[in-house]
Amino acid sequence: MQEIFDYIDDHWEKAISDLKRLCRQPSISAQSKGMAEMARLTAQLLKEYTVSPKLLPVPGSSFPVVYGEIKGQSPVTLLFYNHYDVQPPEPLELWTTKPFEPALREGKLFARGVADNKGDIAARLLALRAFLKVRGRLPISVKFVIEGEEEIGSPHLAKFVEQNKRLLKANACIWECGGMNWKNQPTVSLGVKGILYVQLETRGASVDVHSSMGTIVPNPAWRLVWALASLKDMDENIRIAGFYDQVRPPTSQETKAVKAMQSDEEEIKESLGLKKFVKGVTGFDYRSRHILEPVLNICGMESGYTGPGSKTVLPCLAHAKLDFRLVPDQRPDDILSKLRKHLDSHGFEDITISPATEGENPSRTPIDSRFVSIVAQAAREVYGMEPAIIPSMAGSGPMYSFTDTLGLPTALIGVSYAGSRPHAPDEHIRIADFILGAKHIAVLLERMASDWRPARK
Amino acid sequence: MQEIFDYIDDHWEKAISDLKRLCRQPSISAQSKGMAEMARLTAQLLKEYTVSPKLLPVPGSSFPVVYGEIKGQSPVTLLFYNHYDVQPPEPLELWTTKPFEPALREGKLFARGVADNKGDIAARLLALRAFLKVRGRLPISVKFVIEGEEEIGSPHLAKFVEQNKRLLKANACIWECGGMNWKNQPTVSLGVKGILYVQLETRGASVDVHSSMGTIVPNPAWRLVWALASLKDMDENIRIAGFYDQVRPPTSQETKAVKAMQSDEEEIKESLGLKKFVKGVTGFDYRSRHILEPVLNICGMESGYTGPGSKTVLPCLAHAKLDFRLVPDQRPDDILSKLRKHLDSHGFEDITISPATEGENPSRTPIDSRFVSIVAQAAREVYGMEPAIIPSMAGSGPMYSFTDTLGLPTALIGVSYAGSRPHAPDEHIRIADFILGAKHIAVLLERMASDWRPARK
Repeated sequence: MQEIFDYIDDHWEKAISDLKRLCRQPSISAQSKGMAEMARLTAQLLKEYTVSPKLLPVPGSSFPVVYGEIKGQSPVTLLFYNHYDVQPPEPLELWTTKPFEPALREGKLFARGVADNKGDIAARLLALRAFLKVRGRLPISVKFVIEGEEEIGSPHLAKFVEQNKRLLKANACIWECGGMNWKNQPTVSLGVKGILYVQLETRGASVDVHSSMGTIVPNPAWRLVWALASLKDMDENIRIAGFYDQVRPPTSQETKAVKAMQSDEEEIKESLGLKKFVKGVTGFDYRSRHILEPVLNICGMESGYTGPGSKTVLPCLAHAKLDFRLVPDQRPDDILSKLRKHLDSHGFEDITISPATEGENPSRTPIDSRFVSIVAQAAREVYGMEPAIIPSMAGSGPMYSFTDTLGLPTALIGVSYAGSRPHAPDEHIRIADFILGAKHIAVLLERMASDWRPARK
Repeated sequence: MQEIFDYIDDHWEKAISDLKRLCRQPSISAQSKGMAEMARLTAQLLKEYTVSPKLLPVPGSSFPVVYGEIKGQSPVTLLFYNHYDVQPPEPLELWTTKPFEPALREGKLFARGVADNKGDIAARLLALRAFLKVRGRLPISVKFVIEGEEEIGSPHLAKFVEQNKRLLKANACIWECGGMNWKNQPTVSLGVKGILYVQLETRGASVDVHSSMGTIVPNPAWRLVWALASLKDMDENIRIAGFYDQVRPPTSQETKAVKAMQSDEEEIKESLGLKKFVKGVTGFDYRSRHILEPVLNICGMESGYTGPGSKTVLPCLAHAKLDFRLVPDQRPDDILSKLRKHLDSHGFEDITISPATEGENPSRTPIDSRFVSIVAQAAREVYGMEPAIIPSMAGSGPMYSFTDTLGLPTALIGVSYAGSRPHAPDEHIRIADFILGAKHIAVLLERMASDWRPARK
């Protein structure tokens, strides 16, 4: 492997320069901005790295999947799931340099999308090139699925995967991005939570009226407050009947992995200006809540007059946006129907529910899968330390299509670190992590060729 | 009185033309727009109607009180409380004609402020002129207090009244505006509710974070929802300890008056597109709730992302605006301290309370006061029917300074009707009501000279 490492050490600047090309192109799916250009540029880059690209239409979506494949020595196949879209860059005034003008400073590259997840696309391509240049071929075959709707909830990917099972056949999957934790320890994450995102809305009179009418005119803001308060109590228990029924208890290995994780509590508290966490949790309870438990969050709510000063008004409309984060084996459609039943049985028939999308299922790859031990071993070789094994991310993604529809063990590794600020101003990666990340992929390809055995599922 | 009525019938067009002058001048206290011009114009108009005007500074305010007085035959003195400020005219697109370009159509005059309450200033001046032209003098003395901050809660008027007790000495007070109910029956209202307007606010992390952090990062939107739900239950009971302690039970006369009122339920329901009222109340319960009971209203609330589509965010800030409408003998400062105690004792020490102003006390003039019978008798003579006696408005105002600081029995009568749309687009009055309103004032002046005896307090 030393020659491969040397190649990466000698040529990362070219890869960073290609990464800048990716970052210079805005690709904001939420605003349909630069998406066609970005799909073409991504395909172009794959081609430059000897990966045959195709733009595959996605049913129901305007943004194609950029698919790529390259054969290797062994028929073992690793699939990379990535996305070419990014979050909107706002608020612009909080960026030190412009979000779509990638800037290198203090060993870091700043740009919207560099951490989530264009940096990983570039690092993975660098690892491939190293093998091709040094050895003339890859140890195993590789496929890329790079979608354009991850940042808007991947609403059409499940269907795409269903329809392309044969094309996407592989042995394992590396997920979009990941990286170092607050202790500069590499992480290998093995799942995502599911999500159900809904808007609740209720109406009162046909127009806003004077607030003195509150004696007799129903106020939708009160209705919404009462309904929301009925969903979750002050001890964070979700009060929807049957909400927890499908929660599969964590395996002993998952519990053990969460126990083994180092604490990042002080770092998180400091970075967010918090004195304590929800329910005052610390240690194992803190990590377990975050990684293994479902949650119900208010993303936003609004009613009536919210400007400066006072206005004596009784609003005619109130709405809230909620997201449920789900764990195996909860399902968004089941939770949606339980939410409707809850509202009806608590006297809130007037409150409508609009799901933003169909939601996403939770997904986890078992810690004892062979693939996980290969990814972890590759991390030990590159980073010189034990990686943190994390049973699940707190966030969501379309992973279920890969783990369950395609049956692939899936792991998240990547070139970010805990301070990378994905989705936020001054998003960045550290160049050192980029180089290590490329090497991690390289060792993984090599080890998959030598160590892979089909999963014992 | 016939000569006086004839004068009003023959000269109302000149008064309407003066009213248009008042309405053409914007005077938006909330935006400090046109206020100095309006104060000068109001004083100018008083002068044209032979009332000596003065602009009196109001401690703490940039907007003076326009004070005026004119002596009459009898030393009995009636004080008119009015205001020269108006509500902002927005939303402009819902006005048929421009808010500050008064327009006559179908026997109605449309303009911002014409109903609330410039029309009443003009009608009262017309009544005075009728006496002066027909008889050369007024039957009684009259004083005007026309303030510039009514639409922003009269924050400085109480102090002004305290400091000008001698100047404002009078025997009774006619309040800013009033008029016909949905049945075209004149109303005589005898009180206002008190008000306490507060903003509640709570903060979580120092910045908005990804919603998947909801497992561990406190969400101020949830805190606010739980706090609000603790303040009022779904049966509309306000759960703040001691909230109802100071509520004085209505007198038998007040209850009788509310019972005697005609129903406007169908008109209100139709105008607001409602199927039923809060708690399903009808008849006496409906009117009693509206007129005699305190209420807690959410005027607005906001947290996190409230735009189109979905954003998975955990907000760092949540706030709500509330108004309490109070009845005798509740006091805003007492309710404010009970609210703070409630939040503290329910675990909401994190929620701050910012009162918009010091609030206003409730006020009621007893139905059996001599002044009320004089006002009612004058109404019978002018309108040819029994007026509706309403123990209190549902809204608020600085009446306490007049009823309690100055000790004046106070009644609301005026030139509006139930469809006048005060504070809303297409605010208007009917010309016929304007003429009747001027006559009502004229008869009242005459009867005060003959029938007034000091209150038997």
